[in-house]
Amino acid sequence: MGTNQMGVVKRNIERADKATVEKLSRFGVATVHEAMGRVGLMQTYMRPIYAGAHLCGTAVTVLMHPGDNWMMHVAAEQIQPGDVVVAAVTSECTDGFFGDLLATSFRARGAKGLVIDAGVRDTKDLTAMQFPVFSKAISAKGTIKATVGSVNIAVVCAGALVHPGDVILADDDGVVVVPAALARQAAEAAEARENNEAEKRSKLAAGVLGLDMYKMREGLERAGLKYID
Amino acid sequence: MGTNQMGVVKRNIERADKATVEKLSRFGVATVHEAMGRVGLMQTYMRPIYAGAHLCGTAVTVLMHPGDNWMMHVAAEQIQPGDVVVAAVTSECTDGFFGDLLATSFRARGAKGLVIDAGVRDTKDLTAMQFPVFSKAISAKGTIKATVGSVNIAVVCAGALVHPGDVILADDDGVVVVPAALARQAAEAAEARENNEAEKRSKLAAGVLGLDMYKMREGLERAGLKYID
Amino acid sequence: MGTNQMGVVKRNIERADKATVEKLSRFGVATVHEAMGRVGLMQTYMRPIYAGAHLCGTAVTVLMHPGDNWMMHVAAEQIQPGDVVVAAVTSECTDGFFGDLLATSFRARGAKGLVIDAGVRDTKDLTAMQFPVFSKAISAKGTIKATVGSVNIAVVCAGALVHPGDVILADDDGVVVVPAALARQAAEAAEARENNEAEKRSKLAAGVLGLDMYKMREGLERAGLKYID
Amino acid sequence: MGTNQMGVVKRNIERADKATVEKLSRFGVATVHEAMGRVGLMQTYMRPIYAGAHLCGTAVTVLMHPGDNWMMHVAAEQIQPGDVVVAAVTSECTDGFFGDLLATSFRARGAKGLVIDAGVRDTKDLTAMQFPVFSKAISAKGTIKATVGSVNIAVVCAGALVHPGDVILADDDGVVVVPAALARQAAEAAEARENNEAEKRSKLAAGVLGLDMYKMREGLERAGLKYID
Amino acid sequence: MGTNQMGVVKRNIERADKATVEKLSRFGVATVHEAMGRVGLMQTYMRPIYAGAHLCGTAVTVLMHPGDNWMMHVAAEQIQPGDVVVAAVTSECTDGFFGDLLATSFRARGAKGLVIDAGVRDTKDLTAMQFPVFSKAISAKGTIKATVGSVNIAVVCAGALVHPGDVILADDDGVVVVPAALARQAAEAAEARENNEAEKRSKLAAGVLGLDMYKMREGLERAGLKYID
Amino acid sequence: MGTNQMGVVKRNIERADKATVEKLSRFGVATVHEAMGRVGLMQTYMRPIYAGAHLCGTAVTVLMHPGDNWMMHVAAEQIQPGDVVVAAVTSECTDGFFGDLLATSFRARGAKGLVIDAGVRDTKDLTAMQFPVFSKAISAKGTIKATVGSVNIAVVCAGALVHPGDVILADDDGVVVVPAALARQAAEAAEARENNEAEKRSKLAAGVLGLDMYKMREGLERAGLKYID
Repeated sequence: MGTNQMGVVKRNIERADKATVEKLSRFGVATVHEAMGRVGLMQTYMRPIYAGAHLCGTAVTVLMHPGDNWMMHVAAEQIQPGDVVVAAVTSECTDGFFGDLLATSFRARGAKGLVIDAGVRDTKDLTAMQFPVFSKAISAKGTIKATVGSVNIAVVCAGALVHPGDVILADDDGVVVVPAALARQAAEAAEARENNEAEKRSKLAAGVLGLDMYKMREGLERAGLKYID
Repeated sequence: MGTNQMGVVKRNIERADKATVEKLSRFGVATVHEAMGRVGLMQTYMRPIYAGAHLCGTAVTVLMHPGDNWMMHVAAEQIQPGDVVVAAVTSECTDGFFGDLLATSFRARGAKGLVIDAGVRDTKDLTAMQFPVFSKAISAKGTIKATVGSVNIAVVCAGALVHPGDVILADDDGVVVVPAALARQAAEAAEARENNEAEKRSKLAAGVLGLDMYKMREGLERAGLKYID
Repeated sequence: MGTNQMGVVKRNIERADKATVEKLSRFGVATVHEAMGRVGLMQTYMRPIYAGAHLCGTAVTVLMHPGDNWMMHVAAEQIQPGDVVVAAVTSECTDGFFGDLLATSFRARGAKGLVIDAGVRDTKDLTAMQFPVFSKAISAKGTIKATVGSVNIAVVCAGALVHPGDVILADDDGVVVVPAALARQAAEAAEARENNEAEKRSKLAAGVLGLDMYKMREGLERAGLKYID
Repeated sequence: MGTNQMGVVKRNIERADKATVEKLSRFGVATVHEAMGRVGLMQTYMRPIYAGAHLCGTAVTVLMHPGDNWMMHVAAEQIQPGDVVVAAVTSECTDGFFGDLLATSFRARGAKGLVIDAGVRDTKDLTAMQFPVFSKAISAKGTIKATVGSVNIAVVCAGALVHPGDVILADDDGVVVVPAALARQAAEAAEARENNEAEKRSKLAAGVLGLDMYKMREGLERAGLKYID
Repeated sequence: MGTNQMGVVKRNIERADKATVEKLSRFGVATVHEAMGRVGLMQTYMRPIYAGAHLCGTAVTVLMHPGDNWMMHVAAEQIQPGDVVVAAVTSECTDGFFGDLLATSFRARGAKGLVIDAGVRDTKDLTAMQFPVFSKAISAKGTIKATVGSVNIAVVCAGALVHPGDVILADDDGVVVVPAALARQAAEAAEARENNEAEKRSKLAAGVLGLDMYKMREGLERAGLKYID
Repeated sequence: MGTNQMGVVKRNIERADKATVEKLSRFGVATVHEAMGRVGLMQTYMRPIYAGAHLCGTAVTVLMHPGDNWMMHVAAEQIQPGDVVVAAVTSECTDGFFGDLLATSFRARGAKGLVIDAGVRDTKDLTAMQFPVFSKAISAKGTIKATVGSVNIAVVCAGALVHPGDVILADDDGVVVVPAALARQAAEAAEARENNEAEKRSKLAAGVLGLDMYKMREGLERAGLKYID
């Protein structure tokens, strides 16, 4: 759902810098979300339209009314290479706001993909194009072009606040929003986590228990855990 | 959900003509739904049980009570080659009304597939058979054979009205019902749309914006859209 | 949801015998559920995280509070080769209680997979590991380690009662719980059903109607079914 | 959801006769639904906006697009005293399509109430007016007036097929549709049921068991029921 | 959902003692649930059919198949004064399994009310009778009498395990199950909690902060909480 | 769901001015939402815990983790007379984060009510206190006090962005957020709308059609609407 005024297109937005986006793209959503302190995740109903879809880029946001995708065309003009379009609707709607024609246009502008809190269609074509989309629904139902919304304002998409220029990272585990100002720090924290995990993984694979590796036994006892036979 | 009286099997139904069904089968659900004026789509919770499932055929309808699939066997006898069984239940139910044995029987009768506003099971076998099913749920739970319903009456399936003999088209984007009387006209309109889309697609791929191709800029301005920096 | 007291880990549980588990593993969930008299099925929202995931093993149960996966590490120590961890939460939660590190640990202990009435993450890695998981949700959101729950108590998971040591069987059609005491009998009944189905299948494939094969016509007429033209 | 073509208003519809509507209005929804053979019930998410709301009248139908209530005004003109407006939307939408101004207009035309598979607003005012509404949602969100739908075509509302002129009966137990052609017969069957129930009620109140009153014991035993201590 | 074998009625069950049930009836569900260590609560979709409904009694359990309420009549015979019927269904169903006739019968047997993981009807009459019911749905749709289930076996109702004879307590906050063996202890713990709360309430009403009353400030600081201006 | 960093309490926030809040409190949510251009509405699942509950005040925000209400006590200290606490959780949770003790404390601090995207309990007491709460769920399940969240940061609550100090208005029609900076303008627009509605209402009550009053006939014809008999 959107956050404020309608009928506005902001042309100049500040995008997270490309090097940071590239660095973030190397990590999974779970790692980045954890690195950020467990905030910024969209709701779990947002799913990729094909297995293996993933994307990372800077947000161009669009807010529309239910059943009306006019602003998608307005958003297309604001896309720069490396952007991800993040689409919100003013109330719940599963209509197909996006299909293969818009995907062709978005890709021609350099878009990395789409995240939409609504429905999309032409999923067979989108899959053939390998154009990654994360959506709430799949629906053949088309939309009209009658009311204006906004482009590049702050929007709430699937429960997460997105500002234009934020980094959007999506994979099999969901969609996370990294505010542009925190992107570098998040990338570094993610890298640190990942380095840290390799060693843990090999210990666990060797049969070491998390109880011992993380030294949990004392804490559990203090918390009152009892073993019985 | 069903629409009227129970305990009736209609043997002679008028099916949409084969040439039209064949023509409709060449188009996607989104195209046909659009061609029909955006009516006749089932709700978006109807999903294929395997990726890539699609079907096109004439409806044999069946209305059952929750947890009771007796009428599926009655429906089997009414199937003619090229039919799609459309199954509705008098109230919401996720039980598995259909599995590999019924699929074997339906296929032997010439059925093209099943659309059911309830659950199915044996999905691994159905996938191996490449027997297309669009359903609300997958459930191992079997059903009883105790109460009669009806076959080949008008039914409401996943929010769409289906008369026996209507054309049912289903793919990754959903399930659409084309009334038999409108089938030829829908096929022609779908064809016209598709021819029209190829040119649009190549323009958009070349970077032309929908804003310009569809001449939207003036309308947007009149609707009050403002650009800011 | 869980069934009784918190803060307890039961170390010695009686598992269904290995030969019976192995025998049950040859059948599908639909067959076994039917063989048991249509009881013991988890709700249909429990889905495999990758196509084709299936598992069969003896239950190690764990009950946790929402957003807290501390007890997963406690459960890991109780796993014996051939076990399936069955995880319940005291109230609805979609957080990711489980990821690739825990999967590595569980596998090192000999676990056959996980059934969890909550979310999991790192699904790409879990798929690459072919570690079967049946869950309610996929979520990148991690959990804390602050409150104790229990291990190897009776739990309610997705609507089904699970005692430690019960046989858990899961495939594309869902998840069924076979109480340890009934496992042998269920396996035999499943075998009988399956033998019985081969003959039915070939008759149906040859075009024999279920109406005739199951001798339903008289019953339907008695129940009031009318044929009209 | 709607059933066919858009952009049409049918002015002359055949309404169920007033005496029959009046007779049906004396019964509860459960009684009438049962009398009709358990068909024609809307889905259970349709709820009255205030406790005790109930209505009975002849349907004026309206089909709209999501977020667009233009056709409500078109429908108003078609209302005759004793009508109930039945509103469907081409895809799921919770927006508030109806509020106190439209209720004032509908009442001035003689409407008995509204049944809508979407949202309504101004519920405090509607309650004060005692204008009965059965809806899927309550939402303050207003709608636009940009696209045409249809009035007095067959519509699917909350899973039930409604033709203009059908009798609509709604109370605490839900909403049932009685086709105009079956209304008299349904009213008579409902009356018979109700007469029949008074005697049953007094027997049950005196402690007679349904098992004995309905002579169920033998059937249960034949069905395999066992009593244990 | 149910837990084990079908077709069985257990006549002699051990009920929690009357004095304890009476004592538990003085407390709210939230208090008792807390006193038990936060286990045994049914899912939050279980709601009273009228405002202010509440009940407390010993469970007579019944397990039915979807759309079939035959066993309700069997359960009626097993009711003793002070019992609450707890009804589960083998898969999700919203049909109306219970109405005013059964309520009349149950009340004549001394039942305190009904808790059902399905639908009920005749809610206006039930409200007039002040017969408390907690259910998942309200539906006018009736059921058949064709298949046997069980009475007084362990059932899973709305996510909670219920054994016959357990104490069932329900009010505006939900439904909690107190195992018979733990009932006395739960009643005492609830009493202790309640005595404890009066003092807290008056302190808080006087403006004392929970931060101070519960001495939370140090813990919060240790957990890293920062105050900024 | 929350929007950014955890572990922070902001003490000094800028609240919308009291006169404007008081002015907004005279209007309904539907009127204010419309006056703002149809933005800022929370999702429709947010419902009052008792009929007639309504509130208007300035937001004190709190972000918590699922199952953990520790920060509610931290928020209590930040409440000033006229505030409404707006509570968000980092992932979906229905637990009862709030009951009569916290309500007593909040009221002692001058709070006007609570809006929470989670569950609450003790609803009977809250109703007796006439302490207005709008929530997603009612649940007896209590929470722990183990993890820190934040107070007075921007949060996303039920799909709407809320900054501390914004005006929160809630009644039977839902919950709307009015950004502090736009509050005066929204109040004036609401007043203008309301004045405008009285005249419309009396015209409609006199039988004037919206079609004529709003001069819609020509637009409808242009849009293609056809009348048939």
